[in-house]
Amino acid sequence: MHNFTNDYSEGAHPKVLEIMLESNLEQNEGYGLDKHSERARELIRRWIDMPNADVHFIPGGTQTNLLVVSSFLRPHQCVISADTGHINVHETGAIEATGHKVVTVPGTDGKLTPQLIQSVVGSHVDEHMVQPKMVYISNSTELGTIYTKSELQDIRETCLKNGLLLYLDGARIGTALTSRLNDLSIEEVARLVDVFYIGGTKNGALLGEALVICKEELQEDFRYLMKQRAAMPAKGFVLGMQFEALMKDGLYLSLATHANEMASKVADIFRENGYGFYTEPCTNQVFPIVPNELAKRLIRDFGCLFQAQIDDDNVCVRFVTSWATSQSSIDRLRSFFQEHI
Amino acid sequence: MHNFTNDYSEGAHPKVLEIMLESNLEQNEGYGLDKHSERARELIRRWIDMPNADVHFIPGGTQTNLLVVSSFLRPHQCVISADTGHINVHETGAIEATGHKVVTVPGTDGKLTPQLIQSVVGSHVDEHMVQPKMVYISNSTELGTIYTKSELQDIRETCLKNGLLLYLDGARIGTALTSRLNDLSIEEVARLVDVFYIGGTKNGALLGEALVICKEELQEDFRYLMKQRAAMPAKGFVLGMQFEALMKDGLYLSLATHANEMASKVADIFRENGYGFYTEPCTNQVFPIVPNELAKRLIRDFGCLFQAQIDDDNVCVRFVTSWATSQSSIDRLRSFFQEHI
Amino acid sequence: MHNFTNDYSEGAHPKVLEIMLESNLEQNEGYGLDKHSERARELIRRWIDMPNADVHFIPGGTQTNLLVVSSFLRPHQCVISADTGHINVHETGAIEATGHKVVTVPGTDGKLTPQLIQSVVGSHVDEHMVQPKMVYISNSTELGTIYTKSELQDIRETCLKNGLLLYLDGARIGTALTSRLNDLSIEEVARLVDVFYIGGTKNGALLGEALVICKEELQEDFRYLMKQRAAMPAKGFVLGMQFEALMKDGLYLSLATHANEMASKVADIFRENGYGFYTEPCTNQVFPIVPNELAKRLIRDFGCLFQAQIDDDNVCVRFVTSWATSQSSIDRLRSFFQEHI
Amino acid sequence: MHNFTNDYSEGAHPKVLEIMLESNLEQNEGYGLDKHSERARELIRRWIDMPNADVHFIPGGTQTNLLVVSSFLRPHQCVISADTGHINVHETGAIEATGHKVVTVPGTDGKLTPQLIQSVVGSHVDEHMVQPKMVYISNSTELGTIYTKSELQDIRETCLKNGLLLYLDGARIGTALTSRLNDLSIEEVARLVDVFYIGGTKNGALLGEALVICKEELQEDFRYLMKQRAAMPAKGFVLGMQFEALMKDGLYLSLATHANEMASKVADIFRENGYGFYTEPCTNQVFPIVPNELAKRLIRDFGCLFQAQIDDDNVCVRFVTSWATSQSSIDRLRSFFQEHI
Repeated sequence: MHNFTNDYSEGAHPKVLEIMLESNLEQNEGYGLDKHSERARELIRRWIDMPNADVHFIPGGTQTNLLVVSSFLRPHQCVISADTGHINVHETGAIEATGHKVVTVPGTDGKLTPQLIQSVVGSHVDEHMVQPKMVYISNSTELGTIYTKSELQDIRETCLKNGLLLYLDGARIGTALTSRLNDLSIEEVARLVDVFYIGGTKNGALLGEALVICKEELQEDFRYLMKQRAAMPAKGFVLGMQFEALMKDGLYLSLATHANEMASKVADIFRENGYGFYTEPCTNQVFPIVPNELAKRLIRDFGCLFQAQIDDDNVCVRFVTSWATSQSSIDRLRSFFQEHI
Repeated sequence: MHNFTNDYSEGAHPKVLEIMLESNLEQNEGYGLDKHSERARELIRRWIDMPNADVHFIPGGTQTNLLVVSSFLRPHQCVISADTGHINVHETGAIEATGHKVVTVPGTDGKLTPQLIQSVVGSHVDEHMVQPKMVYISNSTELGTIYTKSELQDIRETCLKNGLLLYLDGARIGTALTSRLNDLSIEEVARLVDVFYIGGTKNGALLGEALVICKEELQEDFRYLMKQRAAMPAKGFVLGMQFEALMKDGLYLSLATHANEMASKVADIFRENGYGFYTEPCTNQVFPIVPNELAKRLIRDFGCLFQAQIDDDNVCVRFVTSWATSQSSIDRLRSFFQEHI
Repeated sequence: MHNFTNDYSEGAHPKVLEIMLESNLEQNEGYGLDKHSERARELIRRWIDMPNADVHFIPGGTQTNLLVVSSFLRPHQCVISADTGHINVHETGAIEATGHKVVTVPGTDGKLTPQLIQSVVGSHVDEHMVQPKMVYISNSTELGTIYTKSELQDIRETCLKNGLLLYLDGARIGTALTSRLNDLSIEEVARLVDVFYIGGTKNGALLGEALVICKEELQEDFRYLMKQRAAMPAKGFVLGMQFEALMKDGLYLSLATHANEMASKVADIFRENGYGFYTEPCTNQVFPIVPNELAKRLIRDFGCLFQAQIDDDNVCVRFVTSWATSQSSIDRLRSFFQEHI
Repeated sequence: MHNFTNDYSEGAHPKVLEIMLESNLEQNEGYGLDKHSERARELIRRWIDMPNADVHFIPGGTQTNLLVVSSFLRPHQCVISADTGHINVHETGAIEATGHKVVTVPGTDGKLTPQLIQSVVGSHVDEHMVQPKMVYISNSTELGTIYTKSELQDIRETCLKNGLLLYLDGARIGTALTSRLNDLSIEEVARLVDVFYIGGTKNGALLGEALVICKEELQEDFRYLMKQRAAMPAKGFVLGMQFEALMKDGLYLSLATHANEMASKVADIFRENGYGFYTEPCTNQVFPIVPNELAKRLIRDFGCLFQAQIDDDNVCVRFVTSWATSQSSIDRLRSFFQEHI
């Protein structure tokens, strides 16, 4: 029985495994200097149309986040995040453990805005306070929402005006780029941010994220920093091979498209049964609001997670789909509503 | 053409891949709470005969080292290491980046002794100096040597007498336990140290190390610390499955035995051709001393690494074997000597 | 012309200088092991009636705060603070620079409550989030308010129930203990918290804070931690002598009493002229709310600071008094109102 | 009875106290923005003839060292020091606590040389090792020796060639500049290094060091970093006033000259009695080598410290003089030898 708990419950997409099996007994250079990693880097540079981008493969998302913040900020500088941001809530203080404060503002549907960013800059005025130097956003966000092109452009402008670096956490960038509401291309993303990552773990890989350092001034010595933060596996080719597979023939976006389609069907089922949503469904995370009792049964039977208590009677739960979500899981959810409600 | 550069050039042993393939579409709990990780933990506890040991799967060795040091020391405490220790030389200051000094002494064939440890304790006498609190050793060492039972017992005693924790880096513990010179069992290792790890990356896994916290007082809250140091992958089952395979039917030690046998053949070839060694060969790293010119050709043709300049005319090089080293590679080396010398 | 900017604009109280002058050419032990520091420690232990308390003299308040947090928490643990807390706002991320997150809640008049503390505990439920382990409060607070005995007892109980350490920042503890609203004795404070400090800088000393570690389990090795954080001056006797003077004949509280009396007169002047306050005046910080135009003149003529914009027309400013505030300064303020309003 | 334990046993020179007393009831700006600090900064800039130098007053030497290293290095970079360097031995890992490794080489009489520096650079070749980026020297050194102009020039050249910053710890720079062997001017020092400090604690002040950032690229945002490391006292004027006094009318160097003269007399006494030295005496630290029994009596009667066991029969002890050492103390030492030997 497949459930809707998250997008990292299964192994890797078969095409990812295939390349790993084929190459298993090859001898490869260590530490990401192998030919598969090089090919994957090249495929990514071409996809984002940025020949001078620096691309590194990092085992996980928290590691990527702490690396970016600690490598590009000086000790007295902070990163601005929505209060719902992954780095603020769900990384056990990994950012602070590298010495940096995360300054938060209450986000709008999980998103930052120029006004919110400006308010942090405006309230940090002298050397008795940390100095804002980086903006952290995720796309799609922790609440399944996405940034439009004009929103991202406005944030970019705010960053430029205030000397802030812009970092986009792309753990779920595939589902953002293939969202029905999206109007951003990957090339545009790469040009509007200073650094971002293309998430592998949640979109078909066993593990691994492709960090892209767009701004050339930030590229120097990055491999030293990776090594120091234990983000440079001896068998780096294990990550490289997976991105080689994901970047070939559009596999990456096609997996995300599938996840979004499945999520759309989940949303339809709730909509058809008269339920609303915490945020407008548009990527692979759907947040229906349902009565307490129904929530309990959904959690038990479909492995969705409790998200928030909305009022005395209603609860928001989180349904997540992935490349591995099957039509039969959707059918089971539909049957549940037909039978039980 | 297979070379002798290191023991992490290939992917995973076929039996490790097998379990990953079989379980690929299963849905598993995230973050190491899955059934494969649980089974692997149980197999390890049984193997080391320590039912209360805490076992965690960590993506890499540097990460395991920095986690151990930073989790178990207070801020003013240091770790003692041989100057050749991996944490001192080859981790880009990963330990210091967590705030702790590595205090070194010149090791004997890569090993620490009670005298060396005592000398550090004796020279750190008050609050103006860091406080020694942990001893770091590796087995087998960076120079391919191993600790005998009585050596490890003596170090243990020195640690107890001085209130020091004993940590054993087991990146290559398989080759130590299966060395022709070894007289230690894994159960004894687990009883003589406070914490150690069983290396996967260099003995058949794609990546992953099994950290074993023997001392119960150290076990509390360790998962928080893993998460903070980015050592808790979302798909933790990827690590768990691999150790499940390695721990079944003695696979782990049989792979190490193979590596040692191949290394022994490498050593024989050098010995037969009249060359000596930097340290007595007994595990999967062999350090022959050869004339400068020969060293160059070996490096070029067999991918071995330069280790040290011995004198004006001679060089020490490092040959490493692994579970994946084939007899044909050995034959090629033998032919080389027959044809060229 | 004396102004009301803060309580650290002047040097030291004459009695503090006296002991420094008398002892200037004495030779004293370094690093706080001198007889003056020892006497001051003894005087403090007697005052708080806690013979086993550990007392250390630290150059400054930010340093004391960062020392306490980084010494007593493990890496994954956080400190809970009101959003107005000094460690959150005005220390340039000094706490985070030691690796720890400050988790904040909107305080009530600068104070924490059991409910606020419990809400943080309740929302930090697993290893993906930092672990609450310490509560930071200040008395008097950044908004001039104080904790009553029953409030502090309730917080203590909440801490005990949740395994939290309780740390009281006493930069202005003198003005709290001598507040007209206070019902706490210093002995009670020492028994209700685990660690606190008696501020010297803002109450008669040139510099220096007396950190009191009440909980014996926290006392071990503290001098190592002081040295590491550069909080152990070579001439520690400079701090010890000052506290020796402050602790003699009730000087410490008499200086705070004076500051409070002067503040009370400041408050009276505003009250008499029809203005209200941001928080009820009871210590040496007074926060009158005045029209924008008046605020500008007060800031210019009396050096008070802008605190907050209350509405379109009104501003809150901060007036601070100290041991050095003279009646003539009060008279000048009174004249200002008589002449200008 | 005055002893020879160290140069920080007494309070401040009377002229330093004088300015503090005169200004005690003045109201001054906080955090080092006062007029005394500004005057002291200006006097220092003129003395070193470097109008664009950034000057900051820091409470202590360890704090200054950790600030310099942590502010100017990126996380993966290390500082090179002689093994006897204060940052390596006597700061309880304060540097490592900010995340940076101290890489050491065995110094020559406490000094670094171009060859020693080059050897560290030469052995740190890739991203698996920390990256050398700063050289730490002290003048005078921990062994009382000094750098000549040509030695400092050669080190400077080595730094430039290898992209290394040069930092000079001047805790005892006064005694270096007034040494009978010195050929360096303060202006030359300022031009040959990137950053250095002028020690106050060991040369007439109660506490305080004047950090001089010569290299303009390093100056940005330094006050943020000071505040974060708790190195910006609220009453910064306490430090500023002291340096104002020390920098007036050549007081700083005249105090050091006195210390050196007293040390020279100490050395003469030992020389006349037939004893040699660990290093050639030339500043305020003298290291005579004496028989074990004599060492014990000197330590007991004159408070000198044990430095090193030279051989079975002889010990090196350390005698330190200061601005406060009186002729009568010298006389007492001379009498001791006349009476007892």
